Amino acid sequence: MSARAANRDQKERIRRKAAQLFARNGYHGTGVQALSEAVGLGRGALYHHIGSKETLLEEIVTPHIAAMIDLGEALLAQDLPATEKVRRLSRAQMRTLAEHLPEWTVFQRDATTLHGPVRARIFAARERFEAVWAAIVEEGVETGEFRRLDPVAIKGILGLHNYSYLWMRERGRLTPEEIADVFCDTILNGILS
Amino acid sequence: MSARAANRDQKERIRRKAAQLFARNGYHGTGVQALSEAVGLGRGALYHHIGSKETLLEEIVTPHIAAMIDLGEALLAQDLPATEKVRRLSRAQMRTLAEHLPEWTVFQRDATTLHGPVRARIFAARERFEAVWAAIVEEGVETGEFRRLDPVAIKGILGLHNYSYLWMRERGRLTPEEIADVFCDTILNGILS
Repeated sequence: MSARAANRDQKERIRRKAAQLFARNGYHGTGVQALSEAVGLGRGALYHHIGSKETLLEEIVTPHIAAMIDLGEALLAQDLPATEKVRRLSRAQMRTLAEHLPEWTVFQRDATTLHGPVRARIFAARERFEAVWAAIVEEGVETGEFRRLDPVAIKGILGLHNYSYLWMRERGRLTPEEIADVFCDTILNGILS
Repeated sequence: MSARAANRDQKERIRRKAAQLFARNGYHGTGVQALSEAVGLGRGALYHHIGSKETLLEEIVTPHIAAMIDLGEALLAQDLPATEKVRRLSRAQMRTLAEHLPEWTVFQRDATTLHGPVRARIFAARERFEAVWAAIVEEGVETGEFRRLDPVAIKGILGLHNYSYLWMRERGRLTPEEIADVFCDTILNGILS
């Protein structure tokens, strides 16, 4: 392994460990000392890799939300009914959330306690992802598949998905895709018989 | 004012201020020093009133969730169609959330970074509130008003409401009741035309 690859692996290991600690105890509840012990590096070596704790949080969160935005934007460009796009985005979102539960928890929960440029960048990414959902629903309204609802419905649909970081388990009763299907059944068809 | 009433007012003032600080900077991101300065009390006097920071968090959160559970259980006992109960619970939940936004933020977000008995009690309250939602939906299934969906739909409906602590504003474009009505329209009727 080259020195560069070893360095990259080391950073990845630190990010994963930090995400788990932040998810469990909160970003502010995780001291650099605890992080240092968890990854088996001294304070100096740790800071060499992470730069700052806030940069670490940003690096934990950004790749996953960026991947979701890319996936959503690729879906948008496809020639599919809006209903199918909703189903696929929902499945992808629940899969990502399940596979990166600590990272998604830090994204949804801990980024809201920051202030300054890191918070602004993370919130901007959240808004871009919300815009993908809004665009897919708007497409469905334009094709006549969906009714026009107040835009706050999009925030509700996002909440319905994202809030699952609170109860999602790695090996739950349902697969992430099965959860997504129940969610889509609820928001597409409603619960009225 | 009696000494007891003054004491109660003082505690209430500390709770409100602490909720705002916790909501803004996170529970773990709020030091006792910052809290002490915000309420204009020395450390000793502050601890005299709050007992511990964790007790303070519990006292911030508990009255609001208890009030929502009471309201939900009273609704359950009423002779109303399940659809109407869903609408009323949704409106009450969004109104409570809007009027106690810092407290609800601490409840939804910060309680998840605790461990031990306070966390257990707060999570038990959250489950009781979820059980109210589940019972109302079950009532609708039994009367034939609602389709039977997998129980995970309840978690989605909770998320759709609770996640709004992230974007709700005190004077937003819509009233809490109008937001609830859009949410109920989404989950009752679905977005398909």
